[in-house]
Amino acid sequence: MSLTPDASGVFPIAPTPFNPDGTIDWTSTERLFEFYDRIGSDGTTVLGIMGEAPKLEPEESVGIVKIAVAKMPGKPVIVGVSAPGFAAMRSLARQSMELGAAGVMIAPPPSLRTDDQIIGYYAQAVEAIGTDIPFVIQDYPLTLSVIMTPAVIRKIVMDHPSCVMLKHEDWPGLEKISTLRKFQAEGSLRPISILTGNGGMFLDFEMERGADGAMTGYAFPELLIDVVKLQKAGQRDAAHDIFDAHLPLLRYEQQLGVGLAVRKYTMMKRGILASDAQRKPGSSISAKAKTEVDYLLARVAKTDPRAKV
Amino acid sequence: MSLTPDASGVFPIAPTPFNPDGTIDWTSTERLFEFYDRIGSDGTTVLGIMGEAPKLEPEESVGIVKIAVAKMPGKPVIVGVSAPGFAAMRSLARQSMELGAAGVMIAPPPSLRTDDQIIGYYAQAVEAIGTDIPFVIQDYPLTLSVIMTPAVIRKIVMDHPSCVMLKHEDWPGLEKISTLRKFQAEGSLRPISILTGNGGMFLDFEMERGADGAMTGYAFPELLIDVVKLQKAGQRDAAHDIFDAHLPLLRYEQQLGVGLAVRKYTMMKRGILASDAQRKPGSSISAKAKTEVDYLLARVAKTDPRAKV
Amino acid sequence: MSLTPDASGVFPIAPTPFNPDGTIDWTSTERLFEFYDRIGSDGTTVLGIMGEAPKLEPEESVGIVKIAVAKMPGKPVIVGVSAPGFAAMRSLARQSMELGAAGVMIAPPPSLRTDDQIIGYYAQAVEAIGTDIPFVIQDYPLTLSVIMTPAVIRKIVMDHPSCVMLKHEDWPGLEKISTLRKFQAEGSLRPISILTGNGGMFLDFEMERGADGAMTGYAFPELLIDVVKLQKAGQRDAAHDIFDAHLPLLRYEQQLGVGLAVRKYTMMKRGILASDAQRKPGSSISAKAKTEVDYLLARVAKTDPRAKV
Amino acid sequence: MSLTPDASGVFPIAPTPFNPDGTIDWTSTERLFEFYDRIGSDGTTVLGIMGEAPKLEPEESVGIVKIAVAKMPGKPVIVGVSAPGFAAMRSLARQSMELGAAGVMIAPPPSLRTDDQIIGYYAQAVEAIGTDIPFVIQDYPLTLSVIMTPAVIRKIVMDHPSCVMLKHEDWPGLEKISTLRKFQAEGSLRPISILTGNGGMFLDFEMERGADGAMTGYAFPELLIDVVKLQKAGQRDAAHDIFDAHLPLLRYEQQLGVGLAVRKYTMMKRGILASDAQRKPGSSISAKAKTEVDYLLARVAKTDPRAKV
Repeated sequence: MSLTPDASGVFPIAPTPFNPDGTIDWTSTERLFEFYDRIGSDGTTVLGIMGEAPKLEPEESVGIVKIAVAKMPGKPVIVGVSAPGFAAMRSLARQSMELGAAGVMIAPPPSLRTDDQIIGYYAQAVEAIGTDIPFVIQDYPLTLSVIMTPAVIRKIVMDHPSCVMLKHEDWPGLEKISTLRKFQAEGSLRPISILTGNGGMFLDFEMERGADGAMTGYAFPELLIDVVKLQKAGQRDAAHDIFDAHLPLLRYEQQLGVGLAVRKYTMMKRGILASDAQRKPGSSISAKAKTEVDYLLARVAKTDPRAKV
Repeated sequence: MSLTPDASGVFPIAPTPFNPDGTIDWTSTERLFEFYDRIGSDGTTVLGIMGEAPKLEPEESVGIVKIAVAKMPGKPVIVGVSAPGFAAMRSLARQSMELGAAGVMIAPPPSLRTDDQIIGYYAQAVEAIGTDIPFVIQDYPLTLSVIMTPAVIRKIVMDHPSCVMLKHEDWPGLEKISTLRKFQAEGSLRPISILTGNGGMFLDFEMERGADGAMTGYAFPELLIDVVKLQKAGQRDAAHDIFDAHLPLLRYEQQLGVGLAVRKYTMMKRGILASDAQRKPGSSISAKAKTEVDYLLARVAKTDPRAKV
Repeated sequence: MSLTPDASGVFPIAPTPFNPDGTIDWTSTERLFEFYDRIGSDGTTVLGIMGEAPKLEPEESVGIVKIAVAKMPGKPVIVGVSAPGFAAMRSLARQSMELGAAGVMIAPPPSLRTDDQIIGYYAQAVEAIGTDIPFVIQDYPLTLSVIMTPAVIRKIVMDHPSCVMLKHEDWPGLEKISTLRKFQAEGSLRPISILTGNGGMFLDFEMERGADGAMTGYAFPELLIDVVKLQKAGQRDAAHDIFDAHLPLLRYEQQLGVGLAVRKYTMMKRGILASDAQRKPGSSISAKAKTEVDYLLARVAKTDPRAKV
Repeated sequence: MSLTPDASGVFPIAPTPFNPDGTIDWTSTERLFEFYDRIGSDGTTVLGIMGEAPKLEPEESVGIVKIAVAKMPGKPVIVGVSAPGFAAMRSLARQSMELGAAGVMIAPPPSLRTDDQIIGYYAQAVEAIGTDIPFVIQDYPLTLSVIMTPAVIRKIVMDHPSCVMLKHEDWPGLEKISTLRKFQAEGSLRPISILTGNGGMFLDFEMERGADGAMTGYAFPELLIDVVKLQKAGQRDAAHDIFDAHLPLLRYEQQLGVGLAVRKYTMMKRGILASDAQRKPGSSISAKAKTEVDYLLARVAKTDPRAKV
């Protein structure tokens, strides 16, 4: 199965489960992807920034791809292959596809600044991995400090038929979705899938602007699935209602740096991960912060029983 | 009246009202501070980053200070005096105090990096404005790219008796408040006022961590006042209830770059500003975004009738 | 007299002379421009970054423009008008032209990132100052963190007939000059003047790549004049010989942050400035550093007697 | 052999030789370290930023360490082990020491900002690699955007007995060397070796400020050896004479981004490398730039016959 521009729905970004000693917790890894599959995710993305990918050994990365593919049968697995050198990027990309991945995701390195540099980088990356592998552009300025205009994204898409998706994670980013869809309507951009990130902080309106779904890591991907489905079904108010019920927690999770610690703590409470450990260097949250998450969970649970943990 | 470490409550950060032609709208300016006073604000802060201060002429800045002081009788007015040179900083600071301001706010220039540079900068600034003027440290890493540890803030406070307040706008920042209050409890930090920013995005928990209130620009400062009062009264759930009702709008307003445009649009709809114009170079929001704000206002109004505009 | 695309030669960037108490040293200011005129400078640029412009009061800025114009009769004076707001930029630009300036220089604000943002900013700036004022693009990535590709510069030049010059201060930047001159040869760029900066660190080769001269602040502008003249006369080896003799000192002066302190110290030793003071916040150099400058001056003087001070 | 605080002299930073197809050129690699040994280098550093280390596969890195150790018998080989995760850092560090390396070099990740973050990072890194491996602090703000004050460096040195050397690559950085040596003289800092970088741009004065030598990549390490030896022998003028003769070329090589291309081109002309290829993504220089390097080489050769290539 290959990723196509028709991809839609929710692709949870998978955290990498670790044991407290820093080794990978393979049992939780299996449980994690079983969970994503069971709740109705449309796919998943592994080895992203949130997945602590740069801290993994090559054989560990391969192990995670294998489990994701095995545990989400029939669903597309996207593999983050960003790397300082194109040789390593090619190696992981081709190996992943052989293992059954549906496509790869490529983030621009933080040193890129001008439009030409960004466009040139993607051209080199596509040359490196091969034009037969579907890829996703990761547009995440807050963390990567690379700013892509809609025109730059369009150029990359139009230059490379193997570009099938935009992981949209600009902030603010609503107008960017509108502009890209306008390009498409005008005929200057071919159709691509747009899945949004930022923990889902603007998913309610992103769907209304033309997004196809979400690719992010909120500890309750069920909520993302609900919002996407309701918006697609035209049930605007219902989508906002359930979204708003989760927003206080979602906002708490979307804190730069400590967000992953909040997320892993919640997923541990939910029984998905055995530990909230991160591989060093990592972040953690205080006991006080944990009580705040517990409080928020209890409040969400008043509307959404799935948050009762 | 002088600002003291006992300052508490809500100090709305004032936007500067402009006419569509870029001149200052003095009528709206008067109405704005009357509004802040009427709703029970505890003070106000003018000429901040959000107030487009660097785009104002010296005499315009003075005009705004005068109106704020006149229209909020008996309440402390804080004046942002950040400037590339200490001569200009001194000039505006002393002039403001003569006009009746209660204190000044100083942001670190973006070029500062190390602890010593930050501490040294505030020492020079205090020497420039004089040790008799109460001042506020503005800690706003996301925009200023200067990161102050709790220990650096403590050092500035302990070095300078005229430092009376921290405008806390780190993100994430909850642990920073806890650490500063722990310093205080241990006796290594003298008491200071901590008012929080970031549009209020974490005000619910910031109060629980030890903040004294908010200094930020949400278009419904009434909500900030409610949350601060309820938390001070120990009504935790009630504070979160009203906060959560506003959070979808508050989150929408807290978008980097376009946030001010959202805020001015809402304040215009509320009849506080005659126009949502910004002085050039400024930002603006699309017609679509305006409908989104309208939708959010309508939803907030279901819980909080003040949002019916 | 108006600045034109034919401008050529050496335009020293003027430091602003201060008294030790931080007031402007007007006597040294007069002497400075008399010196520039006497040694055969082709013009001068005032109120640039190196001139500590953001630390000046509006009336001080005007005073410096007046003296420069008076003391360099018949030669073009360029005025740096970069400002956070377009209202202030317009005001200083128009006032400067009325006082006899030949043109203005505009640097992009550090927040700009994408090609479109940069192009848009210059369009707004030209609208603000008026299309009748000749202007210079300042391209200085190391300090401003704005990166302009040759294509972006071309777009600005072609969009605005009043753009007559590029202050080229990219590092590395030799290929940029070659590319711009190639654009010109191909007909896609109209002729503009290119004067280079970076303290002159690459002036020897910049002239060979097609630069028209230098606009920078080395404490011996006579050296810059020599190199430009010799290169224009086709005396390559002689140009490199005199350049190389100064390079050890020139390199010492080209240290980020402290460079201005080195420069003012040398100009003080030369009798041009009465003091090497900077307005606060400023930089300074140690006693040890001064002996190093003295040593370098003595070594340069072995080849170039003008360095005997 | 273990690296100690007595280390002194010149440790060339080794580029990694590649074939035009991107594979490692092992023959040139052997020749490179034979060359470093033959000219009298005191050691070498491999897998640094300039060595394109992040683009290498783990087994390639190990291969380079093996050759360096074999070809520089009796001389210390330092291995750059910077990595996003401490597990990979530990793995390469311990493997390198088993293969005969004398110590490792650790650069701070670009995300670090505050003094505490930097100090904490080194504490975690030392815990990860083990306290028995001598390590070098890499202080390179221009590229890494991490600024370490002298006090921070002192703290790291005093906290960790296994810290034996500072690779000093701040710019400007002369005062930093003086301050560290003053700390040492006062007794607040134990003796450490300080080797300087920045291509040698300030080596003449760095030696006078108290540096023990150079660790950088200038294509004529013989020049660095000369300057270090002459300065140690108290022959100041002679040191500056030979330094100044090379400065025009050295300055040309010290251009951010393209510097490595200039360096590899020169080393290819010298017969040390078979190709000037870089692994993708890499930089290159134009035909025009090559003629400029050739011209500079010819000029240097007038004083230093070793530059006749």
